[in-house]
Amino acid sequence: MDKIKKKNPLMNKDRLEMFSDGVFAIAITLLVLEIKIPNHEDLHKAGGLYQYLFHLWPSFLSYALGFIFIGIYWSNHHHLFNYVIKKTDHVFNLINVIFLMTIAFMPFSTAILGEYVMEKEYMNAAVTTYCIGLFFPVPMVGIMFLYAFHKKKLIDPKLSNAFIRKQILKLSGGLVTSLTAIAFSFSYPIVSICITGFSFLLYLMPPDMPEYDEEAGG
Amino acid sequence: MDKIKKKNPLMNKDRLEMFSDGVFAIAITLLVLEIKIPNHEDLHKAGGLYQYLFHLWPSFLSYALGFIFIGIYWSNHHHLFNYVIKKTDHVFNLINVIFLMTIAFMPFSTAILGEYVMEKEYMNAAVTTYCIGLFFPVPMVGIMFLYAFHKKKLIDPKLSNAFIRKQILKLSGGLVTSLTAIAFSFSYPIVSICITGFSFLLYLMPPDMPEYDEEAGG
Amino acid sequence: MDKIKKKNPLMNKDRLEMFSDGVFAIAITLLVLEIKIPNHEDLHKAGGLYQYLFHLWPSFLSYALGFIFIGIYWSNHHHLFNYVIKKTDHVFNLINVIFLMTIAFMPFSTAILGEYVMEKEYMNAAVTTYCIGLFFPVPMVGIMFLYAFHKKKLIDPKLSNAFIRKQILKLSGGLVTSLTAIAFSFSYPIVSICITGFSFLLYLMPPDMPEYDEEAGG
Amino acid sequence: MDKIKKKNPLMNKDRLEMFSDGVFAIAITLLVLEIKIPNHEDLHKAGGLYQYLFHLWPSFLSYALGFIFIGIYWSNHHHLFNYVIKKTDHVFNLINVIFLMTIAFMPFSTAILGEYVMEKEYMNAAVTTYCIGLFFPVPMVGIMFLYAFHKKKLIDPKLSNAFIRKQILKLSGGLVTSLTAIAFSFSYPIVSICITGFSFLLYLMPPDMPEYDEEAGG
Repeated sequence: MDKIKKKNPLMNKDRLEMFSDGVFAIAITLLVLEIKIPNHEDLHKAGGLYQYLFHLWPSFLSYALGFIFIGIYWSNHHHLFNYVIKKTDHVFNLINVIFLMTIAFMPFSTAILGEYVMEKEYMNAAVTTYCIGLFFPVPMVGIMFLYAFHKKKLIDPKLSNAFIRKQILKLSGGLVTSLTAIAFSFSYPIVSICITGFSFLLYLMPPDMPEYDEEAGG
Repeated sequence: MDKIKKKNPLMNKDRLEMFSDGVFAIAITLLVLEIKIPNHEDLHKAGGLYQYLFHLWPSFLSYALGFIFIGIYWSNHHHLFNYVIKKTDHVFNLINVIFLMTIAFMPFSTAILGEYVMEKEYMNAAVTTYCIGLFFPVPMVGIMFLYAFHKKKLIDPKLSNAFIRKQILKLSGGLVTSLTAIAFSFSYPIVSICITGFSFLLYLMPPDMPEYDEEAGG
Repeated sequence: MDKIKKKNPLMNKDRLEMFSDGVFAIAITLLVLEIKIPNHEDLHKAGGLYQYLFHLWPSFLSYALGFIFIGIYWSNHHHLFNYVIKKTDHVFNLINVIFLMTIAFMPFSTAILGEYVMEKEYMNAAVTTYCIGLFFPVPMVGIMFLYAFHKKKLIDPKLSNAFIRKQILKLSGGLVTSLTAIAFSFSYPIVSICITGFSFLLYLMPPDMPEYDEEAGG
Repeated sequence: MDKIKKKNPLMNKDRLEMFSDGVFAIAITLLVLEIKIPNHEDLHKAGGLYQYLFHLWPSFLSYALGFIFIGIYWSNHHHLFNYVIKKTDHVFNLINVIFLMTIAFMPFSTAILGEYVMEKEYMNAAVTTYCIGLFFPVPMVGIMFLYAFHKKKLIDPKLSNAFIRKQILKLSGGLVTSLTAIAFSFSYPIVSICITGFSFLLYLMPPDMPEYDEEAGG
C-alpha cells in the first residue's frame, strides 16, 4: 500500500477566517452583557433609575472603548489575512486560536474597568486589568507574524522585506507601549489611561498596505 | 525598491457583511438572556410560577419588540448593502463598527424597559432608556449614508440623486421622531410609547428600491 | 427621469439562511448558560458538589432536550429552504424573523422546566411554560408555509399539490398535539410530558422529500 | 402522479459545517462569561481587587484550557470534514447535533473546575465534572466515525482501511484515557489532572492526513 504522509500540511484559510469572524462577533456583542441590569436595591441606593444610569457612565464608556478596540482588531485581522497570509497549517491554526483567546478575554477586563475605575480603592487594579487585557493580543499578533514570516510558505512571497521589517517594528512599538501602560497602572493609573487613549487613536489609523519587491512586480 | 502606498483603499464588502450578520444574530438572540429566570424568593413574592410569568408580560413584550426592531435593522442593513453600497474602506468599516455598537446595545435598553416600565417610580427613566437605545442607530445610519454618498466610489454610481435625497429625508424624519420620543419620555412616557409604536409600524414597511438616473439606464 | 419602483420584490435567500443559521447556533449554545453554576450556599444546602450536580439532572435533561429540539428545527429549516423555498421577499423575511424569535425563546422555557419541574408546587407551571415554548414555532412554520404556498413565486413551481397538502396536514397535526400538551399541563403535567416525549420521537424522523407533479418532471 | 420518495437521502455538508462553526465559536467565547465579575463583598473578602484577581487564577487557567480544548476540537472537526466526510444525511446531522451538544456543555464543566478546584472539600467533584465534560465528545466522535465508515457513501471511497482502523484505534485510546481520568477523579483528582494534561499535549498534535488505497490512487 502506497501511503501519503505529510504532517502539518498547508491548508486553506477560509474556515480559519470564518471561525475567527464568529469569535470576534460574539466577543464584541458579549460586551453588553457586562453592563449590569440594576435590581431594586441598586436603584434605591442610587436614588432612582436616572441617577443609576447616570452613574453607570464608566460602564458605557468602557463598553464603547471595548467595542471599538475589538472592532479594530477584527478589521486588522482581516487586513492581515487579505494581504499577507495566504495559507495556514496546524501550528498556525493553534496560534490563531490562542490569539482569539486573548480577544475573547476582553469582555472580562472591560467589565472590571467599567465596574471599578471610579472607586478610588480599586482604580489601580481595574486599570491594570484593562491594560493587561489590551496587552495580551499584541504578542500573539507578533507570534503570528514571526511564524508566518519564518515559514515563508504561508505568506505572499513577493512581500518586500522592508514591509515585513516595518510590521515587526510597529508591533514592537505596540508591545513597549502596552507594557509601559501596565507598569504605570500600579501607581499612576491616570498615566496608563492617557497612554491607552493615545494608542487608541493610533489604532484608528488604517493598517499599512503591503509593499512588494521590485523584481517580483506589484 | 518600487513601493505601492495607498492609504484607505477600497475593499470588498463581503467580510463586513458576514461580521455584521454575526453581530446582528448574536444581539437579537441575547435579548432572551434579559428575561430573568426567577429564584424561589421571586416566586414566593409573586405567589407562584404562573403568577410570576403572568407579571413578566412587559419583559415578554419588550423581548418581542426588541427582536423585531433588530430584525428590521438587519433586513434594512442588507437591503442597503445589496442595492446601494458596493465597496467599503477603512473609515466606512469603522463607521459600521460603531453602528453595530448601537445595535448590540439594544439588549440592555430593552431589558431596562421590560424590568421597570410597569413601576410608576421608574417608568419615565425606563422609557427614556429604551427610546435612547432606539435613537442611537438612526444617526449612525445617517453617517453611513452621508459618507457613502460623499465618497461616491462606495455606491452604485448610477443611483439617482432623487433616490439619495429621499433616503436622507427619511432618515431626518426618523431622527426627529426618535428625538421627540426621548423628549416626551421625561414627563409623558405614554406619548413616547405611542410614538415608538407608530414608528414601529413604519419600520415594518419594505425599504425603498433604488432608483437610477435615466441616462445611466436601470 | 425614469424610475423603477417595485415594492416587496423577490430577493435572494442566501443572507436569510446565514442569519437564521447564526440565530439557531446561538440559541442552541445559550442553553448551557441556563444551567446554574452553584455558589457556596447552594453546595452547602445540597450537601456537597456531587450531590448538587446529581440533583441538577432535570437541568441536564432539559438542556439535552432543548438542544435536540432546536437542532431538529435547524435541520428542518434547512430542508425547507433547500427543497421548497426558492426565493424570499420583505414579508417573508419578517415572518422568518418572528419564527426565529420563537426559537430564541426556547432557552428561557427550557431553563424554567429544568429549574422547577421537580418541585411539586411549580411543576404544572414549569411544564406549561415548556409546552408553550415548544408550541410557538409550530404556527410560525405554518404561516411560513401558507405564505410561501400562496405566493407561488417563492417556491419551486413543480412541487405537487399532494406534497403541499401533506405538509399542511402534518403541521396541523403538530399544532393540535402541542395545544393538547399545553391544555393537559395545567392539571396533568405528566400527560403533557408523555405527549412531548412522543412528539419528540416523531420529530427525529427525517422530513419528507419533495414530490413533483408528473407533467413537470422530477 | 409519479412521486419520488427517498427517505434519508445524501445531502450537501456545507450548512452542517457552517452551523457547527457557529456553535464552536459561541461555545468557545461563552467561556469568558464563566469568569465571575466580583461584587464589593467578594473584593472585601479577598482584601482588594488585585488579591481577588490573583486568587482567580484557577478560573483563568481553566478558561485557557477550555479555549484550547474547544479550539482543537474545532480544528479536528474541520480536518474530518475536509478529508474524510464528503456527504451527510439526516441521521448524521442528528449525530453531529449531539456531538455539538457535548461541545457546548464544556463552558459549564470548565466553570465548575475553575470555581471549585482549589477548595479541598469540592476538588474531587470539580475534577470529575471537568473530566466528564472532556469525555462526552469522545464517544460522539466515535459514533460519527462508525456511522460514516459504515455508510461508506458518506466518506471518500478511496480511503484505505488501514487509515480507518488507525482512527478507530486512536479514538479507543482516547476513550480509555478519559474514562481512566474520570475513575481516578473520585479519589485521586491529582492523577486525573495529570492524565488530562498529558492527553492535552497529545491533542495538540496535528491530526493524521488521510491515506488512500494503492489501486485507487492518491
